[in-house]
Amino acid sequence: MLKHPYLLFIGNASDQLAAKTAAGIVQWRRDWCLGQCRLPRCQADLHLPEMTPEQAAAAGAGTMIVGVANAGGFLPEAWTEMLLRGLRAGLDVASGLHDRLVDNPAVGAEAARLGRALHDVRHPQRTFSVGTGERRAGRRLLTVGTDCSVGKMYASLALTATMRARGLDADFRATGQTGIFIAGDGVSVDAVVADFIAGATEWLSPAADPQHWDVIEGQGSLFHPSYAGVSLGLLHGAQPDALVMCHEPTRTHMRGLPNRALPDIAACIAANEQAARLTNPRATCIGVCVNTSSLAADTAEALLAGLGARLGLPAVDPLVHGVDAIVDRLP
Amino acid sequence: MLKHPYLLFIGNASDQLAAKTAAGIVQWRRDWCLGQCRLPRCQADLHLPEMTPEQAAAAGAGTMIVGVANAGGFLPEAWTEMLLRGLRAGLDVASGLHDRLVDNPAVGAEAARLGRALHDVRHPQRTFSVGTGERRAGRRLLTVGTDCSVGKMYASLALTATMRARGLDADFRATGQTGIFIAGDGVSVDAVVADFIAGATEWLSPAADPQHWDVIEGQGSLFHPSYAGVSLGLLHGAQPDALVMCHEPTRTHMRGLPNRALPDIAACIAANEQAARLTNPRATCIGVCVNTSSLAADTAEALLAGLGARLGLPAVDPLVHGVDAIVDRLP
Repeated sequence: MLKHPYLLFIGNASDQLAAKTAAGIVQWRRDWCLGQCRLPRCQADLHLPEMTPEQAAAAGAGTMIVGVANAGGFLPEAWTEMLLRGLRAGLDVASGLHDRLVDNPAVGAEAARLGRALHDVRHPQRTFSVGTGERRAGRRLLTVGTDCSVGKMYASLALTATMRARGLDADFRATGQTGIFIAGDGVSVDAVVADFIAGATEWLSPAADPQHWDVIEGQGSLFHPSYAGVSLGLLHGAQPDALVMCHEPTRTHMRGLPNRALPDIAACIAANEQAARLTNPRATCIGVCVNTSSLAADTAEALLAGLGARLGLPAVDPLVHGVDAIVDRLP
Repeated sequence: MLKHPYLLFIGNASDQLAAKTAAGIVQWRRDWCLGQCRLPRCQADLHLPEMTPEQAAAAGAGTMIVGVANAGGFLPEAWTEMLLRGLRAGLDVASGLHDRLVDNPAVGAEAARLGRALHDVRHPQRTFSVGTGERRAGRRLLTVGTDCSVGKMYASLALTATMRARGLDADFRATGQTGIFIAGDGVSVDAVVADFIAGATEWLSPAADPQHWDVIEGQGSLFHPSYAGVSLGLLHGAQPDALVMCHEPTRTHMRGLPNRALPDIAACIAANEQAARLTNPRATCIGVCVNTSSLAADTAEALLAGLGARLGLPAVDPLVHGVDAIVDRLP
């Protein structure tokens, strides 16, 4: 469990995209973000107050978040001095990089000496039991996708916010790095040992009040040949009552695989419903979330209208239309 | 790659079942098994010559295999002295236990001091790339199942032996501990990080001569809610031309899950074919292997005849009838 509020460290990010983890935290958890900490020549800007680690600690920050990524996911030498200042100022440090903070000799030793927590959220922080498939109390929604990186986290967060605004008891359950920073907790399910994908998901979304909703962030796609095993274990562990399909309409091939076409969205919905029914026979897709940010407005509206009519489901861009039309269909 | 021949260490096995890993190696690789090494009060017998590690090393053994398991998969104190004798005699040591040999202080230190290899085959010995789903040359058969532990390894080994006896160029590809000892190499796919299930399978069965067959040992079941993610990643990574369904007809529930019924075998075949076609559109089930060891002979024959007629596929017990009827159907 990450201590908030956060100081967002974006280092010497080469462009705005390199700081997209931090930008996602600002978008969905603005109230947890005290300030940003940047190094010289940083090309990203979160439009938060500039703060040193010492200023952030004095203002009550709990954790310094490494909200910047580089190709390869390593921890560059240039960042470690500022992370050490964070530890010495009294902050925990959290990172979603592939390289672990605890494996960095200077950072690991200083955290141990000072008794600060290091959170490597890409790596499991605990062990899990295998999944059981046993039904548990509470209601669950899982976002699924035609591909990786099509907006499942954004859709999940928008759904959670709208459900809460309507007075429903709903929690967002994070399964990826950025989602974990936003939720303050979660499991990177694609990083657990293969035998425990479903079990980790069962742990993440435990038995709850019968009226409570968990909105679980999906990963990958049943039709992505690199990651479908993760998606299936997540589907079985989540036991979703409701599925929401996420889609990016301008993608010309599956992410990372130039020779692989995207699946038909109707076939993708049918396959997800069929697989989900192994652990929840009532699992049903209740809507489609489409990221239309690359389309002209009229093109986007025509596409959504066509998809909605073809599938018989509400089809929306969560950031343009909101997700009320989907929340209306909750079972 | 494990050095053979082997000395099979079965410790103080409490019964024959506790030594089933060693028994599997003897059944399928008798020519690699020089002898057995037992401790006082061992209740299992492999019917191999009794050998000390020193005698085995003198006879040319390369590796001492821990072929015994206990509940919990830990390495008991009582075994370590004999493993140390193995290392000092010149042998590598290999284990499929959950506890790693390298993590045992005495065994780890002695192996390092002497330069011997320790093989913890349940744990990945390397890192993998993510799968690509790109077609590669060569032909592949994957065994799949209605459940875990229904005879997929035995079926795979019987199929490989029969294919070789017919002059086909065929290799068995191991995905579990016992299979790895029998093949001398392989990957425990259920122990890799979830993102790499398909990638590890692609690595295990690389591009080959167009006429070459890899017979890949399956794991779990698409219908087992604990492990289906592993089975799906394996299915996508294997890109099988042929599937063989494995089944244990007396099982009353899915292994480890008393409340979960087994799937219908026809539905299980259809789901496996459908999922496999994401990476190999020609994937087709060509037969069924049934473990009938718990049935009377006439009951078994009636069951197999009924299954075969219903499915339109050869249905055999590999250890009773052989698998010629299935190999006849290879594409």
